[in-house]
Amino acid sequence: METLKALEWRYATKKFDATKKVEDKKIKRITEAFNLTPTSYGLQPIKLIVVRNQVIKQRLLPHSYNQNQVVDASHLLVFCIEDIIDKNFVLNNFDLIKSVRNTPEDILAPFRNFLVDHFSKLSQGEIKKWATNQAYLAMGNVLTICALEEIDACPMEGFVPEKYSEILQLEKHNLTPVLVLPLGYRAHNDEFSSMKKVRRPLEETIIEID
Amino acid sequence: METLKALEWRYATKKFDATKKVEDKKIKRITEAFNLTPTSYGLQPIKLIVVRNQVIKQRLLPHSYNQNQVVDASHLLVFCIEDIIDKNFVLNNFDLIKSVRNTPEDILAPFRNFLVDHFSKLSQGEIKKWATNQAYLAMGNVLTICALEEIDACPMEGFVPEKYSEILQLEKHNLTPVLVLPLGYRAHNDEFSSMKKVRRPLEETIIEID
Repeated sequence: METLKALEWRYATKKFDATKKVEDKKIKRITEAFNLTPTSYGLQPIKLIVVRNQVIKQRLLPHSYNQNQVVDASHLLVFCIEDIIDKNFVLNNFDLIKSVRNTPEDILAPFRNFLVDHFSKLSQGEIKKWATNQAYLAMGNVLTICALEEIDACPMEGFVPEKYSEILQLEKHNLTPVLVLPLGYRAHNDEFSSMKKVRRPLEETIIEID
Repeated sequence: METLKALEWRYATKKFDATKKVEDKKIKRITEAFNLTPTSYGLQPIKLIVVRNQVIKQRLLPHSYNQNQVVDASHLLVFCIEDIIDKNFVLNNFDLIKSVRNTPEDILAPFRNFLVDHFSKLSQGEIKKWATNQAYLAMGNVLTICALEEIDACPMEGFVPEKYSEILQLEKHNLTPVLVLPLGYRAHNDEFSSMKKVRRPLEETIIEID
């Protein structure tokens, strides 16, 4: 779909058609798009959980303020941040750069040293905030890709992270869930789908300095 | 451009061709895309500054760690958050919903009351974090739209917000800058443009629960 039309078409879908599943190849494209999201320093402190299992979605429902889209959606994406951003995490990233690009050690070393030093000085709270920002950026990318693919989605901040962690066994992966995105196809009777989009006029949200 | 190809094509452009300007109609599309970004509760606590003025870009350079893309890019986008998210801010949003959709008062009232109460209980720090998250989500959307439009961009967290505020006179708009995005066209000699993209393999960043 044409880009702006796609952004107009999308909306936070509350009622999904539970009988319609998103095709595997579309889900594959969404996960590839997620992985191509740019992240701060290229460190990719984020992972994506793709839940298709109906029993697990049902178990997540009470920890999602009973919002039915969690169950009725074809797939539930859970955007997670890495719990451990330490020296090794940074070093692994530079090993990856080296293996992909064959970058000489003398080019990599200064930036690597800077990042190891930088993260060693941040508190766990600061690192968590930094990583969470990257998850939001990835969500922004994924939402737009979904719209272009004509997949409906409902971005959600409202859920109980501790319960999601427990049910999805995220601790063993050293992950914390920060955002949830049910994906699927809108139900024909979702009253929100026909409502006009509400946005402040451009004159209010854009300031041009020429 | 096809979506995944566009995401492969884009990269954090460090060297822009200073002679090439992004067409007005493309900038208009970018600003419309920004404004269509979904935000938490639909409140749009973000604004976008579009700087084309070369003198001002030059003044921002020393406060951008002297990264030349700030000056050489055709346009500099500055993603800002609203400083004042209070009862009036929420009420104005509901007036907008009412005027666009003609929603009856009895439907709007409970959600409006919930939000007024919700924000009255948050600290300024919590509100700032919430709004900043929305700016990152908008950046994720805008970066993808830029790629589809074949506009080069360089997402930046590294700049001095206080100095940007001063130079762009953001205080009078009650805005705080949180992200910067130079836009334009890559220089033909930008060595980064031909480098392979570095990403962890999908098997590492995606976890499927079937």
